[in-house]
Amino acid sequence: MMRGGKDAYQPRPEHHFTFGLWTVGNPGRDPFGEPVRSPLAPVTIVRKLAELGAYGVNLHDNDLVPAGATAAERDRIVREFKQALADGGMRVPMATTNLFSDPAFRDGAFTSRDPRVRAFALQKTLAAIDLGVELGATTYVCWGGREGVETNAAKDPRTALSWYRDAINYLCEYVRAQRYDLRFALEAKPNEPRGDIFLPTTGHMLAFIYTLDHPTMVGVNPEVAHERMAGLDFSHAVAQALEAGKLFHIDLNGQQVGRFDQDLRFGSDDPKGAFFLVKLLEDARWPGMRHFDSHAYRTEDEAGVWDFAAGSMRTYLIFKEKAAQFNADPEIQQLVADVQGDDGSGLSFSELRNKSFDLRELRSRGYAYERLDQLTMELLLGVR
Amino acid sequence: MMRGGKDAYQPRPEHHFTFGLWTVGNPGRDPFGEPVRSPLAPVTIVRKLAELGAYGVNLHDNDLVPAGATAAERDRIVREFKQALADGGMRVPMATTNLFSDPAFRDGAFTSRDPRVRAFALQKTLAAIDLGVELGATTYVCWGGREGVETNAAKDPRTALSWYRDAINYLCEYVRAQRYDLRFALEAKPNEPRGDIFLPTTGHMLAFIYTLDHPTMVGVNPEVAHERMAGLDFSHAVAQALEAGKLFHIDLNGQQVGRFDQDLRFGSDDPKGAFFLVKLLEDARWPGMRHFDSHAYRTEDEAGVWDFAAGSMRTYLIFKEKAAQFNADPEIQQLVADVQGDDGSGLSFSELRNKSFDLRELRSRGYAYERLDQLTMELLLGVR
Amino acid sequence: MMRGGKDAYQPRPEHHFTFGLWTVGNPGRDPFGEPVRSPLAPVTIVRKLAELGAYGVNLHDNDLVPAGATAAERDRIVREFKQALADGGMRVPMATTNLFSDPAFRDGAFTSRDPRVRAFALQKTLAAIDLGVELGATTYVCWGGREGVETNAAKDPRTALSWYRDAINYLCEYVRAQRYDLRFALEAKPNEPRGDIFLPTTGHMLAFIYTLDHPTMVGVNPEVAHERMAGLDFSHAVAQALEAGKLFHIDLNGQQVGRFDQDLRFGSDDPKGAFFLVKLLEDARWPGMRHFDSHAYRTEDEAGVWDFAAGSMRTYLIFKEKAAQFNADPEIQQLVADVQGDDGSGLSFSELRNKSFDLRELRSRGYAYERLDQLTMELLLGVR
Amino acid sequence: MMRGGKDAYQPRPEHHFTFGLWTVGNPGRDPFGEPVRSPLAPVTIVRKLAELGAYGVNLHDNDLVPAGATAAERDRIVREFKQALADGGMRVPMATTNLFSDPAFRDGAFTSRDPRVRAFALQKTLAAIDLGVELGATTYVCWGGREGVETNAAKDPRTALSWYRDAINYLCEYVRAQRYDLRFALEAKPNEPRGDIFLPTTGHMLAFIYTLDHPTMVGVNPEVAHERMAGLDFSHAVAQALEAGKLFHIDLNGQQVGRFDQDLRFGSDDPKGAFFLVKLLEDARWPGMRHFDSHAYRTEDEAGVWDFAAGSMRTYLIFKEKAAQFNADPEIQQLVADVQGDDGSGLSFSELRNKSFDLRELRSRGYAYERLDQLTMELLLGVR
Repeated sequence: MMRGGKDAYQPRPEHHFTFGLWTVGNPGRDPFGEPVRSPLAPVTIVRKLAELGAYGVNLHDNDLVPAGATAAERDRIVREFKQALADGGMRVPMATTNLFSDPAFRDGAFTSRDPRVRAFALQKTLAAIDLGVELGATTYVCWGGREGVETNAAKDPRTALSWYRDAINYLCEYVRAQRYDLRFALEAKPNEPRGDIFLPTTGHMLAFIYTLDHPTMVGVNPEVAHERMAGLDFSHAVAQALEAGKLFHIDLNGQQVGRFDQDLRFGSDDPKGAFFLVKLLEDARWPGMRHFDSHAYRTEDEAGVWDFAAGSMRTYLIFKEKAAQFNADPEIQQLVADVQGDDGSGLSFSELRNKSFDLRELRSRGYAYERLDQLTMELLLGVR
Repeated sequence: MMRGGKDAYQPRPEHHFTFGLWTVGNPGRDPFGEPVRSPLAPVTIVRKLAELGAYGVNLHDNDLVPAGATAAERDRIVREFKQALADGGMRVPMATTNLFSDPAFRDGAFTSRDPRVRAFALQKTLAAIDLGVELGATTYVCWGGREGVETNAAKDPRTALSWYRDAINYLCEYVRAQRYDLRFALEAKPNEPRGDIFLPTTGHMLAFIYTLDHPTMVGVNPEVAHERMAGLDFSHAVAQALEAGKLFHIDLNGQQVGRFDQDLRFGSDDPKGAFFLVKLLEDARWPGMRHFDSHAYRTEDEAGVWDFAAGSMRTYLIFKEKAAQFNADPEIQQLVADVQGDDGSGLSFSELRNKSFDLRELRSRGYAYERLDQLTMELLLGVR
Repeated sequence: MMRGGKDAYQPRPEHHFTFGLWTVGNPGRDPFGEPVRSPLAPVTIVRKLAELGAYGVNLHDNDLVPAGATAAERDRIVREFKQALADGGMRVPMATTNLFSDPAFRDGAFTSRDPRVRAFALQKTLAAIDLGVELGATTYVCWGGREGVETNAAKDPRTALSWYRDAINYLCEYVRAQRYDLRFALEAKPNEPRGDIFLPTTGHMLAFIYTLDHPTMVGVNPEVAHERMAGLDFSHAVAQALEAGKLFHIDLNGQQVGRFDQDLRFGSDDPKGAFFLVKLLEDARWPGMRHFDSHAYRTEDEAGVWDFAAGSMRTYLIFKEKAAQFNADPEIQQLVADVQGDDGSGLSFSELRNKSFDLRELRSRGYAYERLDQLTMELLLGVR
Repeated sequence: MMRGGKDAYQPRPEHHFTFGLWTVGNPGRDPFGEPVRSPLAPVTIVRKLAELGAYGVNLHDNDLVPAGATAAERDRIVREFKQALADGGMRVPMATTNLFSDPAFRDGAFTSRDPRVRAFALQKTLAAIDLGVELGATTYVCWGGREGVETNAAKDPRTALSWYRDAINYLCEYVRAQRYDLRFALEAKPNEPRGDIFLPTTGHMLAFIYTLDHPTMVGVNPEVAHERMAGLDFSHAVAQALEAGKLFHIDLNGQQVGRFDQDLRFGSDDPKGAFFLVKLLEDARWPGMRHFDSHAYRTEDEAGVWDFAAGSMRTYLIFKEKAAQFNADPEIQQLVADVQGDDGSGLSFSELRNKSFDLRELRSRGYAYERLDQLTMELLLGVR
């Protein structure tokens, strides 16, 4: 296989790469330090990402329209933003609500102990849905970053889950009433900024969806960093969502296990995990957006931000090529070929009971996974 | 509230405490060392646990009947075991299959790459179900300890999940065909002994259940240690299962976050988490078994094993008393009382849109959770 | 032992409780949200902590004197602050430098790749040392929160360590030249805000100290949260520092393993670990400051902040009482009494070679640690 | 740079690759399952590793000589083993003691509460040192796998550390008395099989060494998996040991953060971390042994074991080539070139006080680490 041709890793809109306004626009504030970069205007971001080959941008309501803007200001901002999108041939496939920055949400939004806050969160989300739909979004992400507790004395978790469900049901009814072409993608995270966040993994979120009034309208938005914070295999979670028809969106980034939410450049940490994720998405011919929910290191200036954005897309395409190479490698394919034999699931109960097995063979056979993994690593390292 | 009366923490059968034969019977082998205790005969375990106040014992097929036993041996073993149960007034409310010790299961049982192994696992489980039902079990636990991978090159996770589903569906059909009064409780674990195990948390397992042919027959068996290995809040996972009507069984023990599966004595690690778990189960008046899936430290001899068993039950009852104390404490109850206000979920969309909020108040109000948590800790430490 | 008397847990100055200005003064900003509380003036903090029974306050240079203040402003601020200290009978036993908030330190201070930043960090620290000494501090903490990397491509870690050493050596020379009565306490942290921080644990920091020019001037400042982030036993690290004569200061707080830096109220998480820490410090009659480096939950208003501060001290005193109870409990003391026997370290090599052992006894004996731990937990839970 | 030539990654003795007898000889037992592979005779291992290109093998006393062997049996075993070494041109550069398998060590060896066990551990180690020296070893590893606790009620950690020190001091005296050419390398691990192990990281172990009677005789043996279990950056720990002249040995393998001790094939997990480790060792021209302390997946038969061994060495050589490529890449080297400027450490205190800084420049400059890391990843992935 020829590799590294001039344009082999050049992103193009058909690759469906998207970035949040808040990602490349991240000013580099952290818990111990002040911002290090000036804010970037949304129209600047759109123009620059278009140049780099992205498909679109995603946003929280307040990424575009500041809290407290008048209706006239909002409309002007939206008009200019749409013009920038049109100029760059860019889309807004996904929108979401900021339910975490305002101090009113200090105890959560849909699960705040204060019912007035829960009502305010719903109101804010309705407006943000309208904004998203106006910009063309067909996916609406809900990340419940503050839906949790520091002490379990504060809330009965069963009650909190029922509040959460009421909110999502309400939003589904709204979308149905408005006849919007919009699906919800729920995003899980185990902790930070809260001590423990309800529905902490993609698995818990998937299970929750089945208890909603309109489960078909709702899927998940798994994020690499969030699942990896808990040390879970990300591609397994994505596979479960894919297999259940519930992968509505995805957040690509990087993360070390067991630490603060790092939102690293995709593929910069755990390249092996990133490879198997890309392989899964590509093998499944998943049509969704490859959204990067990450930001440049705080050491960077604006040039570093664009290096970060370009690198994110380029790395995805490198892994995509390697996935094709894996699928075409005869030695690897021979190692992963189906084992012959009857798995019993088609047998009657009595047939299965009476089936005999060569246990000596089953106990002593090897699976050659060391060899398979070594070949995979050599492919990944480019020496195969 | 008077505390610590002579028999206040004395376990009795109505408390529904159960132990696995494999827990008090654990000989203290670990990855770096040989067994330190002699095996205990199942009938000895039954007699001793009955004396300590337990309700029953649970078992894997091979905890009672050695692999390779003849039919006659099996029947004799079962007969003697039933006699011991009758003598001690003990029950076997739950049974399960050992699908992990035999080298044949080195790549998993229901998700082994080798279909013959998958068939053998099904066959072994049918026989184990028969045994469990014969002993009176109404809950059947499936722990897929080897259903996983060390390298994702080995299996497409979507295929593995479909094999897993086929197996559980097959088992459900068997139970229906036999008209057994038996429900399945699936148990998740993130890793160990495999690198990554499929369906790694109670959340992922719950979501999987909704994709089965007979979801009402299947619930979950959350285990403290397994959820804590991934750093997740255990009582939140249990609450989600409870609220969905899916808490069919529970495994109580202790575990430090982010390390090997420790199976510590319940309450010996993270007493605050243990307290909130007991409070949740008791507040919900959950009728199921309080099963201890843990074992004595390897430093112990047999006397230490019984100290461990007695302590497990005693600690549960201490927390149960403290939960009642929490619910009766006027100062605590005043702090957790409902906040007044309309949460908006009963409003029409236009009513909600037009609702106005006192954001200054919502942004500046405190929730008094530091005081609430301090009172809770003082209650827990017995100085309140 | 009588417990819970009226004033049993009332903090007094002789208990040596201190708080950082930045702890009770924390405005509740986090990575996803804005401040929720107004800043508190240092003099207000001093007055209020004096009322609550604290011994003193500690500070970073910029907690008291804003960056960019003129010399006259600085002097006025310091004068008023000293008056407040005198009025409240409060001390400033420890001071430190803020080498992390300013964007100039984005790649570290003493280990920034840019030598000009390293020089600026040294200059800022000299001035901060002068301030600390003027306020009476005899301990100077160095926390290298940004001394690290996101990518190891950026720095050779050997070079970074040598820069770090040069800086501490320079500071030691300064203190010697000024004849200040001041010792340094180095504080480790594994990550956050940097991807990986150099000298990530108390152990690594202790080892580093032995390579300095003036090791006797330098000890450690272990912090509960920092060691627990990596899942390490905190009291073991403190014991190692104590035993080496290197425990110069300590930061008390709470933290869940494997997540962002939580700085929870001392004892609110892992009460068992907190108990063994207090027991160690009290058993050792350690004379240093019990410094709380933590902050109130972001859900709190100012009243919650003082609840947090009062609770921190109160919980320490509860554990102190329990440590005395542990030491006085005959059943517990019998279980921890010395085992009789010769440990061989006083034997000649040939005597040891020829010594015979009753291996059967050594292999089968139990250590009764399950019973010991159960009694300890019951003592901790106040039911013993 | 030409890559992937026929023999580019062919291990040869001068690469100093070694394996423990217990690594390729690992029979695949784990906490939930029985052995899956037959034991391999030490002479078989020696012959096969020689064929694969290794330099030598390392061993615990009981890997070669079974516990309880008579003096005559021991001598015969040693004689035959030495013959196999000579036949294969293989060495035994390192030896160690098994102080963890025997039930007598259930509460530790040098830190057991029972002094008789501590004496027995010393006796066993003297004999094992003699064996190691007889086989030519010049490095003696001490891994205190059971030196720890499950409950801190069991031991005062200060006392335990003093027992540990006494033991190492005794062993040093023995080596001096025997005039052996032997250095000790202490190996840290945070937990497993004990709940918490004393001196849990390479940092803590380094610090402990400075408190010994003969610190120059003692260094460290850092292990990838052990440091990664706690989520620490391994190459930073190795750099600290290297810089202090204390890197006496190294254990190469792979490990996911925050889980059981996996001992994966080197480079199969976290290839980026493995690359920076190899780069550090090679840049430092470290002359020591590249020891693989790992084992094949339990899914493997004997063929898989040799795939594992060959792959371990091959991967090291791939990274070694990439390290050279990194050092020769002009674009990368330009990004990591020294920044010009005075770091202040050579200035007098008054010169430093009066130095002025262009803070605007220092606050706004970028470090181009995103670009640097992207180029590094592309080099690692073989597309550069």
